[in-house]
Amino acid sequence: MVQSAVMGYGVVGSGVVEVLTEHKDSIARRTKEEIGIKYILDIRDFPDSPFQDKFTKSFEDILNDDEVKVVAEVMGGVHPAYEFTKQCLERGKSVVTSNKELVATKGAELLKIAKKNNVNYLFEASVGGGIPIIRPLSQCLAANDVIEIAGILNGTTNFILTKMIRESMSFEDALKMAQNLGYAEKDPTADIEGYDAGRKICILASLAYGKHVYPQYVHTQGITKITLEDVAYAASWGGVIKLIGQVKKLEDDTLDITVEPMFIEKSSQIASVDDVFNGILVRGDSTGDVVFYGKGAGKLPTASAVVADIIDCVKHLNKRKYLDWADGDETIVKPYSETKYPVYIRVEVEDKQNAFNKALELFSNARALVRANAGENELAFVTDEMTVSQQEKSVKAFEESGYKVLSKIRISDL
Amino acid sequence: MVQSAVMGYGVVGSGVVEVLTEHKDSIARRTKEEIGIKYILDIRDFPDSPFQDKFTKSFEDILNDDEVKVVAEVMGGVHPAYEFTKQCLERGKSVVTSNKELVATKGAELLKIAKKNNVNYLFEASVGGGIPIIRPLSQCLAANDVIEIAGILNGTTNFILTKMIRESMSFEDALKMAQNLGYAEKDPTADIEGYDAGRKICILASLAYGKHVYPQYVHTQGITKITLEDVAYAASWGGVIKLIGQVKKLEDDTLDITVEPMFIEKSSQIASVDDVFNGILVRGDSTGDVVFYGKGAGKLPTASAVVADIIDCVKHLNKRKYLDWADGDETIVKPYSETKYPVYIRVEVEDKQNAFNKALELFSNARALVRANAGENELAFVTDEMTVSQQEKSVKAFEESGYKVLSKIRISDL
Repeated sequence: MVQSAVMGYGVVGSGVVEVLTEHKDSIARRTKEEIGIKYILDIRDFPDSPFQDKFTKSFEDILNDDEVKVVAEVMGGVHPAYEFTKQCLERGKSVVTSNKELVATKGAELLKIAKKNNVNYLFEASVGGGIPIIRPLSQCLAANDVIEIAGILNGTTNFILTKMIRESMSFEDALKMAQNLGYAEKDPTADIEGYDAGRKICILASLAYGKHVYPQYVHTQGITKITLEDVAYAASWGGVIKLIGQVKKLEDDTLDITVEPMFIEKSSQIASVDDVFNGILVRGDSTGDVVFYGKGAGKLPTASAVVADIIDCVKHLNKRKYLDWADGDETIVKPYSETKYPVYIRVEVEDKQNAFNKALELFSNARALVRANAGENELAFVTDEMTVSQQEKSVKAFEESGYKVLSKIRISDL
Repeated sequence: MVQSAVMGYGVVGSGVVEVLTEHKDSIARRTKEEIGIKYILDIRDFPDSPFQDKFTKSFEDILNDDEVKVVAEVMGGVHPAYEFTKQCLERGKSVVTSNKELVATKGAELLKIAKKNNVNYLFEASVGGGIPIIRPLSQCLAANDVIEIAGILNGTTNFILTKMIRESMSFEDALKMAQNLGYAEKDPTADIEGYDAGRKICILASLAYGKHVYPQYVHTQGITKITLEDVAYAASWGGVIKLIGQVKKLEDDTLDITVEPMFIEKSSQIASVDDVFNGILVRGDSTGDVVFYGKGAGKLPTASAVVADIIDCVKHLNKRKYLDWADGDETIVKPYSETKYPVYIRVEVEDKQNAFNKALELFSNARALVRANAGENELAFVTDEMTVSQQEKSVKAFEESGYKVLSKIRISDL
């Protein structure tokens, strides 16, 4: 019997306890070891829980118990999850987590501490919920150069965009619906501003390219400014708008890494990832495109990924797993202003033809888009590849000519 | 330096040598060991190959060289791949393979031999080419009961069906095109009759349910009888026809396992898997639906999966990996005649209305389908769930009433 502890008894934590309990026998068959839960750490009381005897409010109980070999940190947030994780690793306990915020901000440091103490720090559940992605990506890496990773990494925003696309619901109404259904939190900032997706693409990029990419160096833009007009123009262009976390290695060895809404062609496998689902595309030089699809969140999917990591730790007690990357700084990220891509622009104009003539002058190969029921004062067009700083210069010049730019959205090469 | 050998220098074998050579440094970084190729076994001569010094025509060279720790068997076919693999395992060499035929027919035995000799027998490349599926499935299994696996497992037939669906090309023309493009072999039997997909679903089922499922117990039906009329009716029903390998565990613990063309609803994530791509859906009780998508064949994708296995073996020398299942027999498979599903039926009739009245009598809840340009003598309908033996009885009675049944296709519950 190997003892574990679960820190945090929220949605994921209670799921972990449930999966470990209900799959006890099949897990024991697979690991040749029973996995016990000795402690559940939470500051709250759960008087009706059948796991009464396991609850503790004291982290020290877990830390000081040498029987506990694996700890699931499913508290979320950076503090005190960081301090707890660090102490557990230093005491020779492996830690598994679903905490993307912690991995994205402290991953390199915690992996280093794990290595030093010959234990594991695993985080399959931090990206894609129940979709296996961290392990397959590590595996892919062995025989591939990863050219690009791009994904729909946040289910809440994908649900909102799907409602806007399919039912012409406004952003505000779709957000309200997501909140009513429990997909979005009361304070939806981390989802709708792209921070959650940002943490996830940072984790994938760090793993794929071997150096920690910190979220503060990544251009991160949410979906709050997307309108139904933009959705309609995306359709007339032949695609959909999705919030994409993306990283590619550029020729100068820096990373073009970003989270932002993008126009995605309908034929792309990512375009059909709808509702609360996530889809992650990994483009390898040998494998070509591989796509992983499934529920990116939720109690049992996420818990099942945490439990898979616990099992892996139990099978590899005193043996290190493959996960590892070095620390990184802003020099590995291409400044956003220097990244290059084609763009969609929507403008409020008085005189369409003159405005379009000006667009032809300012933007690379501007081509006008049309949509049904477009107002007289609306112009939309797409361009060829331009650097962001060129785009911004052109937008400025355009606005100085009296045209108001309402939307500017990246066009993906997926 | 750990030495390996490659048996078979065909498409996959030359890809393995290429990937191992070109990714030498990154592999060494990841495994902390360089991986050398000491022998390449092939009965042919390759006078222009830069790997002259490695070629041998004698299997004994590999078998008797104790330096060789890992052998990639990429010859294909059961003999002599089986004998070679067995001998290597017995000599304490790990073996990795892309040979689905061998794994599907001898997997249980070879896994047992590997276990006894404390080496590994890995076969990530045998299903889904470059798509990681064997490992993620094993990982999934740890914390999930697998309810169902269903997939498009053969790229050649998927290419042919895609041409039929998108371009109304006939089966024969699409097959010819696939042959011209190198997607189908001169003798396309294994692909178009479903044998290749059958081997793959057997491997996935064996892994998921822990007992070897042999292809001869699995109902296997190809796509040679699919017509453009069927494709049109599938569209009017709201879906597409795909060749699906599928396994689900039934309440009596037997497996409903089959390879056959199926109607798949357009909204299913599997429906949009087109051309030579593969897509595999794994439905777990905790994770929900997870889908893996990518190129299911091809030199470099398949080679990259073989190399990932080689690396895994090198990392686990003298340590067993997780892959394992017991032997099985026909009792684990539900007889096909007792499996139950809704079905689509197309009939040649003289009098449509009378024929449909008869269909209402004989089939569970028959609902007629319509398509553009349907002939006067054509009737098509879908039914509710019926066992295959009920279906066959009804078809017989229908034909005795003078109606000729031209097509009968399973309707998937995906």
